Amino acid sequence: VPAPETAIRYRVPFFDTDAMQVVHHANYVRYLELVRVQYLEDHDAPYARYIEQGLHFAVTRCEVHYRRPARFGDELVIRCWLQRVGGASLEIGYAIERGEERLATARTQHALVDLDGRPVRLAPERRTALQRLVAQPR
Amino acid sequence: VPAPETAIRYRVPFFDTDAMQVVHHANYVRYLELVRVQYLEDHDAPYARYIEQGLHFAVTRCEVHYRRPARFGDELVIRCWLQRVGGASLEIGYAIERGEERLATARTQHALVDLDGRPVRLAPERRTALQRLVAQPR
Amino acid sequence: VPAPETAIRYRVPFFDTDAMQVVHHANYVRYLELVRVQYLEDHDAPYARYIEQGLHFAVTRCEVHYRRPARFGDELVIRCWLQRVGGASLEIGYAIERGEERLATARTQHALVDLDGRPVRLAPERRTALQRLVAQPR
Amino acid sequence: VPAPETAIRYRVPFFDTDAMQVVHHANYVRYLELVRVQYLEDHDAPYARYIEQGLHFAVTRCEVHYRRPARFGDELVIRCWLQRVGGASLEIGYAIERGEERLATARTQHALVDLDGRPVRLAPERRTALQRLVAQPR
Repeated sequence: VPAPETAIRYRVPFFDTDAMQVVHHANYVRYLELVRVQYLEDHDAPYARYIEQGLHFAVTRCEVHYRRPARFGDELVIRCWLQRVGGASLEIGYAIERGEERLATARTQHALVDLDGRPVRLAPERRTALQRLVAQPR
Repeated sequence: VPAPETAIRYRVPFFDTDAMQVVHHANYVRYLELVRVQYLEDHDAPYARYIEQGLHFAVTRCEVHYRRPARFGDELVIRCWLQRVGGASLEIGYAIERGEERLATARTQHALVDLDGRPVRLAPERRTALQRLVAQPR
Repeated sequence: VPAPETAIRYRVPFFDTDAMQVVHHANYVRYLELVRVQYLEDHDAPYARYIEQGLHFAVTRCEVHYRRPARFGDELVIRCWLQRVGGASLEIGYAIERGEERLATARTQHALVDLDGRPVRLAPERRTALQRLVAQPR
Repeated sequence: VPAPETAIRYRVPFFDTDAMQVVHHANYVRYLELVRVQYLEDHDAPYARYIEQGLHFAVTRCEVHYRRPARFGDELVIRCWLQRVGGASLEIGYAIERGEERLATARTQHALVDLDGRPVRLAPERRTALQRLVAQPR
């Protein structure tokens, strides 16, 4: 049984492009957020539920490898999976694809924090549940 | 004595451009905010002080006329002035220029609202002070 | 027979919000582009085909009325229709809705331009075809 | 003699914030571009000159470590320096600071490419000149 993954489809809007006529590289970081929020909703809890509890998964690290450019109108698939679960942190892996081509890979690290930005430990049962989701990149 | 105006200089960053190789039109709306915040700080109060009081000037209307495109690296001047003060609202006028050329004009309308989005009347002394700032477009 | 309209669904991503905890008003201008591109593809021609011919519908005017704020995770419906067709220009109308609530209305005007930004007249048969699409706002 | 560095001042605009009331993490990637473009202009050549020659420094990798959040109105200093020069590539280091606090560090890697995205080797004299600029992070 493969560990869970979430994939979303995303059609590149014109406003994501820049004067090189490709998607501006900063926008990929937004794409990661789109699929990450969907992943949490599919496999853990809607992000809004964290917010209601005064919690956020603050991004502590983000790393993107850009291989090929995406362009206006491209139909992308953005996938993510959980790579690691710590006491108060997560690491998520990503791939951005257009058909058979891999355009980018990425990973982000997150700390669970309260509204003042202080680290909060994951409740043990949530941590255990999240650890069961940990997957290897395809 | 001319009524007050605020002007800021802004150099167009690469990330503001799109695949037409000009500034994407949605970014002009951000330019208006940049100069508006500076205007309030120069002539009224820092916007942060409104926020501390649980108040915001919500944008209720925004209208931009685009005349000529701006490009990466352009040195723009963005100007604004107060056009009208109502009981719980403001109207601000804008011009975006590159040297002698006028690239765009705009106006925005704002309602003073509390954190729940409910309209709040301007305090009489603030309203009077703001009305003294009302200017005609140059 | 009602004249054509295009509607897209859009779920508000976290990165569209601002520190007022609502969608930043400049992002609505992007939402208009999303549905406008889809409208042209549904009823006229994919925007990429204009670009291949060295043509763009430059935005010459944009006007948004903001009625109620949208928030993270909201499921929006963004609709547009053609309001007017000139010799080298178009006017498009928009509504942004969340369920029964109308959050914003807007209109944009566009000039058909070549890659140097010079106005280009619509070919007569395209103009006629577009004029048949002109609709009244619902 | 310390190797060159470029520092810019940047005041956080409201539109850079998100509903966590801090700067959205994707915007830091834009901040890196702002200072990188200035660095090239200060120490190498205006980026527009690369573009005129049909060249771009495509971003091949971007890594950001987020330590503390930035907020609306914060006065940031964004610094960068050249970390490594390859045959057709560069690596740049960054620090984002608010007064004495370090909010983030980052590095980006770039490949010199032509308009079709194909790698282009740095001319030997440019490469030598760039190598003289290589600096260690402070």
